[in-house]
Amino acid sequence: MHILLCGSFDACERDQWLRVLQAQIPDAHWHLDRAEAAERIEVAVVANPPPGSLRGLPGLRLIQSLWAGVDRLMADDSLPAGVPVARMVDPYMSAAMAETAVWASLSLHRGFFAYQRQQREGLWRQLEQRRACDVRIGVLGMGQLGRRAARQLAALGYRVTGWSQRTAAAEPGIDTCSTDQALQELLPQCDILINLLPLTPATRGLLNRQLFAAMRRGASLVNLARGAHLIEQDLLQALDDGQLGHAVLDAFAEEPLPAGHPFWQHPQITLLPHVAALTDMRSAAEAVAANLQALARGEPLSYLVDRQRGY
Amino acid sequence: MHILLCGSFDACERDQWLRVLQAQIPDAHWHLDRAEAAERIEVAVVANPPPGSLRGLPGLRLIQSLWAGVDRLMADDSLPAGVPVARMVDPYMSAAMAETAVWASLSLHRGFFAYQRQQREGLWRQLEQRRACDVRIGVLGMGQLGRRAARQLAALGYRVTGWSQRTAAAEPGIDTCSTDQALQELLPQCDILINLLPLTPATRGLLNRQLFAAMRRGASLVNLARGAHLIEQDLLQALDDGQLGHAVLDAFAEEPLPAGHPFWQHPQITLLPHVAALTDMRSAAEAVAANLQALARGEPLSYLVDRQRGY
Repeated sequence: MHILLCGSFDACERDQWLRVLQAQIPDAHWHLDRAEAAERIEVAVVANPPPGSLRGLPGLRLIQSLWAGVDRLMADDSLPAGVPVARMVDPYMSAAMAETAVWASLSLHRGFFAYQRQQREGLWRQLEQRRACDVRIGVLGMGQLGRRAARQLAALGYRVTGWSQRTAAAEPGIDTCSTDQALQELLPQCDILINLLPLTPATRGLLNRQLFAAMRRGASLVNLARGAHLIEQDLLQALDDGQLGHAVLDAFAEEPLPAGHPFWQHPQITLLPHVAALTDMRSAAEAVAANLQALARGEPLSYLVDRQRGY
Repeated sequence: MHILLCGSFDACERDQWLRVLQAQIPDAHWHLDRAEAAERIEVAVVANPPPGSLRGLPGLRLIQSLWAGVDRLMADDSLPAGVPVARMVDPYMSAAMAETAVWASLSLHRGFFAYQRQQREGLWRQLEQRRACDVRIGVLGMGQLGRRAARQLAALGYRVTGWSQRTAAAEPGIDTCSTDQALQELLPQCDILINLLPLTPATRGLLNRQLFAAMRRGASLVNLARGAHLIEQDLLQALDDGQLGHAVLDAFAEEPLPAGHPFWQHPQITLLPHVAALTDMRSAAEAVAANLQALARGEPLSYLVDRQRGY
């Protein structure tokens, strides 16, 4: 099988991926340059490939993303129609995302961000301690990532409500809901709102002034999904107004976050350099291998993107 | 039943406790001043009472601590012999301690302390991401607090070993060990070491130069128990030498931590103002009520201190 590996990573990162993928899928012919085998390429393993990269591959049977988020891939108008696209679902990446969601929730609920600020100020002051069962956490998006985060939070005793765009599968110990109306009812109940939605035309800009206004005063926002979910100016306004208490942000409209951006030094913003969950190369390569084996055997492929839905 | 409430808390805190206890145990006579009813006092509900406070109470049948740690209480030589002493075991306090242990572990494992420092420095840099199952966490002390923390950490996928002074009860998903030799074997395996031991003559000063030297180079220490477990100067030396990577500290030899203490501004120390787990007044009062009821009915009392052991 001839496979094209292509993405917007640097040569060093590309070579690392190639080594891990070759170790996992040793009997394939791997190509880094489409020109050398365009007619024979059956699979493209991609990580945000430059637009147009997958045009003119007549034998292409599968586009397998190395990333969980395929919004940039799906925005490429030249993506060959009719070729299935598979997202990456990597159990270790889901675990890492749940870890970040739990860390952010504990930090907010227990005041650990505040205590670290107090340390820098030389201040010894105990804040009120609330029970986890008195803290409501809303998780937007109940796919692989949201579901795992919700489960871990529920295991710590939090009251968790998962909201999905489509009907949410029931999950023990977690309230689930969908519909716009349910979201409007959920927002004022949440102490912490965690965004793990896919980025689609329907979710772009969802974290905006109207949504913040519907939240409980002083509640916190955790955006672990995409920068384009968030209207940055609306967040700054909500923090300044006291409508929101704190925000933990992992993704930004422009990355790396530009020097001088107001988020860097904002006392109510904790920012991460897009590390909430890095793809785990080993387990991602295993997931690619499993889908390639299914393709070779004519079995159903896993985690196919619905092009209408966009994820 | 006549009950003396006495401790080293301020009047406001004392009145809060009195209200919560009275609500839970309404048919008792509560006394704040021992002089008014010394002959009739049957129970002393205490929170680090000044030494000598419990002398001359001929009818005393139970000393019930509001705090989990009874090291200061047991150090009072005038504590009436033969009167049972009960520690506080409060499920919500145990939950809070586990939350702090999980937060500290995630922060260390995932580099979140480092990312927050990077934010202040305006630095965008992704650090290596390790799987939880590749991280070994040692929990010193497998009582109510250690056991619950160990369980929550194991649920997140960490490799957890719990060490007890006495034989440790088996716990699914957690390795347990006791003996000094087992501790020496455990130390070099741990990425993170969490102290939740009671303070006794045997554990005082346990976190010292020798213990740090036996740990894996660059590992982290989390002290959520007592300040007197730790030799502060040895910790500073181990951090400066690079033998330890980071420390999270909740308890100190002197509290509040004095202004100008080197811990305040140390870049490798995250400190909390003794808030890892505050006693939850509501559930603590319920625990007191349960023990008083057992006393009244002649049933076995819960969580009695072994005076030989000191906890």
